[in-house]
Amino acid sequence: MTIAMIGSGALGLYYGARLQQAGEDVHFLLRSDYDAICNKGLTVHSCDGDFYLESLQGYRNAHEMPKADLVIVGLKTFANQHLKELITPLLSEQTAILTLQNGLGNEEQLAELFGRERILGGVAFICSNRGEPGKVHHLSQGAIRLGEFSAGLTARAEQLSAMFNRAQVPCQAVEDLKKIRWEKLVWNIPFNGLCALTDKTTDLLLAHPPTRELISELMDEVANGANAQDLTSPIDGKAFGAHMIEITEGMDDYHPSMMIDRQQGRPLELEAIYAIPLKQAAQRGIELPRIAMLYSLLSVTEK
Amino acid sequence: MTIAMIGSGALGLYYGARLQQAGEDVHFLLRSDYDAICNKGLTVHSCDGDFYLESLQGYRNAHEMPKADLVIVGLKTFANQHLKELITPLLSEQTAILTLQNGLGNEEQLAELFGRERILGGVAFICSNRGEPGKVHHLSQGAIRLGEFSAGLTARAEQLSAMFNRAQVPCQAVEDLKKIRWEKLVWNIPFNGLCALTDKTTDLLLAHPPTRELISELMDEVANGANAQDLTSPIDGKAFGAHMIEITEGMDDYHPSMMIDRQQGRPLELEAIYAIPLKQAAQRGIELPRIAMLYSLLSVTEK
Repeated sequence: MTIAMIGSGALGLYYGARLQQAGEDVHFLLRSDYDAICNKGLTVHSCDGDFYLESLQGYRNAHEMPKADLVIVGLKTFANQHLKELITPLLSEQTAILTLQNGLGNEEQLAELFGRERILGGVAFICSNRGEPGKVHHLSQGAIRLGEFSAGLTARAEQLSAMFNRAQVPCQAVEDLKKIRWEKLVWNIPFNGLCALTDKTTDLLLAHPPTRELISELMDEVANGANAQDLTSPIDGKAFGAHMIEITEGMDDYHPSMMIDRQQGRPLELEAIYAIPLKQAAQRGIELPRIAMLYSLLSVTEK
Repeated sequence: MTIAMIGSGALGLYYGARLQQAGEDVHFLLRSDYDAICNKGLTVHSCDGDFYLESLQGYRNAHEMPKADLVIVGLKTFANQHLKELITPLLSEQTAILTLQNGLGNEEQLAELFGRERILGGVAFICSNRGEPGKVHHLSQGAIRLGEFSAGLTARAEQLSAMFNRAQVPCQAVEDLKKIRWEKLVWNIPFNGLCALTDKTTDLLLAHPPTRELISELMDEVANGANAQDLTSPIDGKAFGAHMIEITEGMDDYHPSMMIDRQQGRPLELEAIYAIPLKQAAQRGIELPRIAMLYSLLSVTEK
C-alpha cells in the first residue's frame, strides 16, 4: 500500500517506520529531520527492540509526493490550517485519510475539505518523543484503535487494522470512533494540561494526593461529557479512569506532548483537547467546571 | 508608643517607617536589610511622596529589643513556627499584638501562644515591594482595617487606628475582624494564586476574558465560604468582587507577593490563604471546588 505520512513528529516517524519495516510503500513529508534522514536514515530506539532504516522516502514538499492509497495525518492540531495544501496533492479517487491527531474536531475538518467518506480516525496510545534529527524514541505502549468517521465497522477499517498488526503495531478497528476519541480524552485532558501548566511530570502529579484526586475528578468530568454524546455504550468514568491511572503509573516520569510543547515555546493543542470537548458537552447541557478552569489557565499561559 | 516591628519585609518597613516618621518609638527586627539600614538609613519611594529616615532602631535578635506596647507582626505566614521565640522577649503585661499577615489562622496561633486578649488583626491593602537593601517601594494603596480578635470594637482598636491615621496610613477600626479577613481573601485567593501559578501579572489575567471570568468565579466562592461563618453582615460577592477588580485594574502590572515568592524560590503562603479557608468552609458544609483545584495546583508546584 502506498502511504503518505503527513506530520512526521515522533508519532508519524515511529508508525511510518513500522509500516515501512513491514513492507509498505511509505512516503514521509519531513521538515526538521529531512537532511539527517536523507543522509543517515532513521534510527528507532524502541522498548520493543531498536531498529534502523537505512533509507526513507522523504520529501520537503507534498507536491513532490506520489498519490497515496492512504494518507496518515500526524500533524499537530494547531497546524490544521495547512491540511488543505498538504493533503490535496496526495489524493486519488480512492485515497483514504486516517487522522491520528489528538482531541476532537479533526475528522470534521478533514471531512469538510475532502469529503466525509474518505475519513477515518484513530487514537494512538503511545509514549514517544524525538531525539536528535534522524532518531525517534518509542518509550512504551504503542497500540492504535481506529474507526470510520461516517460509518460503523467497515472492511476498509478492518484492512487498515490488519496492516498495522502485521507491522507490529497492535491495532483494533472499532464501530464507534466518537467513543474512542472521548476515551483518549480521559487521559489527555488531565495529564496533558496539568503537566503543561505545572511543569511536573505524570509521576509527580500522581504521587501528590491533591493532584491525584484532581486527575480523577477531571476524568469523571470527561466521562460525563462523553456520556451525553450518544455513544454506543457509556464510558465508566471511575473504572476507565482507574485503568488509565494504572497505565500511567507504568510510564514513570512521562512528559506529555503538551508539556514539551510549552517547554519548547510551541503552541498548545488547546482547541482540539479542551475547547471543542467543552463546546460539545455544553451543547448537550453538560457543564465541566474543572476542565473549563484548566482550559482558562492554559489559555493564559500563551498570552 | 513603643512599637516592635517583627517581619520587616516591604509591608513592615513601610508601615514602621510611617509610624517612626509620625514620632512613634519604632524598633525593627531586621535580617537582610540590617547592614544597609544601619549604615545608610531607609529610603521609602512612595506614591504619596518619597521620604528618607536617616536612622532606624534595628536589631538582628529579638532578645536585644525593648519591651513593647505594641508588637506588629508582618512575618510571612510560612515562618509562623518562629512566632514564639520572636515575640516572647517583647512582651510586658500590657503589650498588644497586631498581626497584619495574610490569610486565616494567624490570630488563633498568636492567641494560643500569648493569650487571646492581647491579639488584634488587621488587613493591609497595599502594593509594595522591596528594592535593594535599605529601600522600599510603596506603589499604591496602603490602607489598613483592624479589629480585636476576641471582642468587638474597643478603645484600644480605636487608639491604634488613630495612631495609623496620624502617620498618614488611612486606617479604620472595625467590629468584625473575621469579616475583613474574608474580604481580603476575596482579593488574595484569586490574584495571589493565579499569578503565582501562571507567572502572569494581574493586568494580563484581567485582560484575558477566560481568566477574568475565573477570577470572578473564585471571588464568588470566597464570598460563599465567608457567608457561612456567622459574619455580622454578609459579603456581597458580586459587588465586592467587582470593586476589587476595579481597584486591581488601577494597579497595572502588579506582581502579588505569592508570585514573587514563587519566582524567588520561597515557600508559598498556601496554608493561610487556601488550606484554612477551605477547611473553615468545609466545616460549615460549603464546597469551594475552584479554590480547592487552585490549591491543589499550587501545592504541587512546591514538590
